[in-house]
Amino acid sequence: MTAHERSFHLGAFIWGVGHHGAAWRHPDTDLKGFTDFNFYKQIAEKAEAAKFDMIFFADRLAISDRYENRFDATLTFIPPVRLEPVSLLGALGAVTEKIGLAATASTSYNEPFTLARKFASLDHLTEGRIAWNIVTSTNDGEALNHNREQHFEHSERYARAKEFLEVVTSLWDSWEDDAIVLDQETPLFADPKKVHYLDHEGEWFQVRGPLNIPRPPQGHPIKIQAGSSPTGRDFAAASADVIFTAQPTLEKAQDFYQDIQQRLIKAGRPQGSLKIMPGVMPIIGSTPQEAKEKADYLEQLVDPIAGLALLSDSMNHDLSQYPLDGPLPPLTEIRGNQSRFKLVQALAEKEQLTLRDLGKRFGGTRSHRLLIGTPEEIAVNLQTWFLSEAADGFNIMPPYLPGGFTEFTDEVVPILQDLGLFRQDYHGSTLRDHLGLAKPANKFLQQKTV
Amino acid sequence: MTAHERSFHLGAFIWGVGHHGAAWRHPDTDLKGFTDFNFYKQIAEKAEAAKFDMIFFADRLAISDRYENRFDATLTFIPPVRLEPVSLLGALGAVTEKIGLAATASTSYNEPFTLARKFASLDHLTEGRIAWNIVTSTNDGEALNHNREQHFEHSERYARAKEFLEVVTSLWDSWEDDAIVLDQETPLFADPKKVHYLDHEGEWFQVRGPLNIPRPPQGHPIKIQAGSSPTGRDFAAASADVIFTAQPTLEKAQDFYQDIQQRLIKAGRPQGSLKIMPGVMPIIGSTPQEAKEKADYLEQLVDPIAGLALLSDSMNHDLSQYPLDGPLPPLTEIRGNQSRFKLVQALAEKEQLTLRDLGKRFGGTRSHRLLIGTPEEIAVNLQTWFLSEAADGFNIMPPYLPGGFTEFTDEVVPILQDLGLFRQDYHGSTLRDHLGLAKPANKFLQQKTV
Repeated sequence: MTAHERSFHLGAFIWGVGHHGAAWRHPDTDLKGFTDFNFYKQIAEKAEAAKFDMIFFADRLAISDRYENRFDATLTFIPPVRLEPVSLLGALGAVTEKIGLAATASTSYNEPFTLARKFASLDHLTEGRIAWNIVTSTNDGEALNHNREQHFEHSERYARAKEFLEVVTSLWDSWEDDAIVLDQETPLFADPKKVHYLDHEGEWFQVRGPLNIPRPPQGHPIKIQAGSSPTGRDFAAASADVIFTAQPTLEKAQDFYQDIQQRLIKAGRPQGSLKIMPGVMPIIGSTPQEAKEKADYLEQLVDPIAGLALLSDSMNHDLSQYPLDGPLPPLTEIRGNQSRFKLVQALAEKEQLTLRDLGKRFGGTRSHRLLIGTPEEIAVNLQTWFLSEAADGFNIMPPYLPGGFTEFTDEVVPILQDLGLFRQDYHGSTLRDHLGLAKPANKFLQQKTV
Repeated sequence: MTAHERSFHLGAFIWGVGHHGAAWRHPDTDLKGFTDFNFYKQIAEKAEAAKFDMIFFADRLAISDRYENRFDATLTFIPPVRLEPVSLLGALGAVTEKIGLAATASTSYNEPFTLARKFASLDHLTEGRIAWNIVTSTNDGEALNHNREQHFEHSERYARAKEFLEVVTSLWDSWEDDAIVLDQETPLFADPKKVHYLDHEGEWFQVRGPLNIPRPPQGHPIKIQAGSSPTGRDFAAASADVIFTAQPTLEKAQDFYQDIQQRLIKAGRPQGSLKIMPGVMPIIGSTPQEAKEKADYLEQLVDPIAGLALLSDSMNHDLSQYPLDGPLPPLTEIRGNQSRFKLVQALAEKEQLTLRDLGKRFGGTRSHRLLIGTPEEIAVNLQTWFLSEAADGFNIMPPYLPGGFTEFTDEVVPILQDLGLFRQDYHGSTLRDHLGLAKPANKFLQQKTV
């Protein structure tokens, strides 16, 4: 179906000292990583040397404490601390040259003017290498840190996110690319006809504009979205450049990929203008047996309570009230990350898991795909997914850091390059260049020419 | 009166391509400075080589457009664009090693949880070199970008600022310094008894906490305040580490210094725990005559409308409605930066200035002190202010960049060092070390021992 030329992309998706729930208990993990900048600097340099499109930082705005209504399980098992990613991007931008830098920020707990400025500023600082992972936040703990009792309901948070994004992109467009004149003699700093008020008066926001920063080098920093519900998919199809998604099997990933292509067409956008990059946690061994042993070793470090604490938080529902050796109770309606819950529910049913089993499973991978094998097996698996139109690339979720990532860059990336799948070097300088995405038109310029 | 040993401090206060209103029209100004990171990197490196305590970035959350109710005057005369300072701090932290890094952020248009995290994160990234310049925002243009018609009234914004600061410092304290255990075996990541909920329920904010980041290396990043009203002074005396202030004469600066010492005692804080650093714009020549010519040259580049546009914005009152060659009208009540307005009003009265004169004057220095002379004259003047207890140091406001700053670091700093006034090298590694300020006690620890 895809007439355009497809290209293969890689993101390094970084979460604390590793994505695996037991990362911090692994002897090869660098525990300085919770707060030490040099830890992140080394990973970014490694990702850049391997020609990754981007390095991508997740975020959370609270410490999980739904399980037993206190944070003891979290503080015991699941390190809840990490550096704030938007601050981190600026620092990493100063010590890298080519790689894209992505950070998560919530539309529920920020102001559009503030967020537009920060990402525009970072895009200037890095000369066009920034991406924003747009999340709506689904967790009551986060709400409680921001003047609310509960998080926004699903339809509310998408309505707010849509308007938020509209304001942010308008602010980015409020200076035309050539607005700055810099005539020191006349004088004329900028052409007032090329700078625009928004006068936005919406349901959620009143923002006059213009932004007090010139248009970002990429026009708009890259927009990443991870919504999986129909509303979330439509939102991504209408406005995102990259989709980050959890897809457990090739078939489900293909269905998702096709579904997004349909929605993209409906949204009037061209093929190839939205890159779908599922998450995958690779566990790499020199033999299949060694890989399996590494995975088993990590799994036995996971306490079931760690996973149940995370899952309780994700569902906004305390699972400590049910017997550990019983099944996941038949909860029909949850407030929270419903797509993730459905994945978990399907898994529990299919494999007849007890809560204890489920805690162990979720505590390790948080429902993302685990890919265990030799470098060759892993490279071929990724190639198959790409060629089967299940993915345009992958967000690599290293189980522990830095070793769990450098194994991938040192052993898997060269094979992907030999297969002719992945770039040998960067060909452009911005993240848009790496992703093969065009600079967006300026909406104020479009209004002028109409 | 001061029994404690006083020390002399220097900050580099950076605003766009220079503090002088006509900086961008000066032939020696580097115009890349509006958005180019390398411009800021060079200035920070220069300040660090000169052993400055810190480099300090101002901020505004809107483009001035009160004059004639449009932004044309601003876009013509006064470049309103610059990088967002909190993002900039992360980047500068990655390329410097010792110097403190300060950014302005508003208590009116941020959430305390978000701000606490960003500054805690930056303090970890830089291993303890961060300062927050706490402003309350006084401008309607800023309100209009953040869902409001007008900025908060004076008493409202200080009430909000006070509660905001209470929440932020409590969040910083929510992890005790030794809360993290990192026992991989047991396992135990952190001791739940050393991590604290805030359960803050105030007039402005409801924040549960704890923060999801360990206590900053400095305990609290350094807090800078610039309030000049009695309420602002009390706020600073109760909670700030550094006061930034505009003081036009030695006598007024001494009065201010003494007043703050009294308020500090009333607040129960020890002498020397709050450093007073007035702003000063040095214009340096190899002879007094050359310095004077440089100042005159800069002044003739200022268009009176530039100053009136800035002043209209600061007052939230359109001055375009009054005759240019008439006096400043006798406005008794303004909404906005009242202390600054009083300074301007006193100046206009004393020197019988027309609006045109005033525009030229305000457009150049924005009521900060201009110090014109040879390196020796400038060094001796700063020494006199310090010894006369008018200041604990200065925020140097370079008129244009980078030349207007490197003249100071290359020619004035060595004299200050020869006078035995200023450090020859850094003796510690954090900004608190440079300023000679102790790490604050943790309020949760104090509650425990009571």
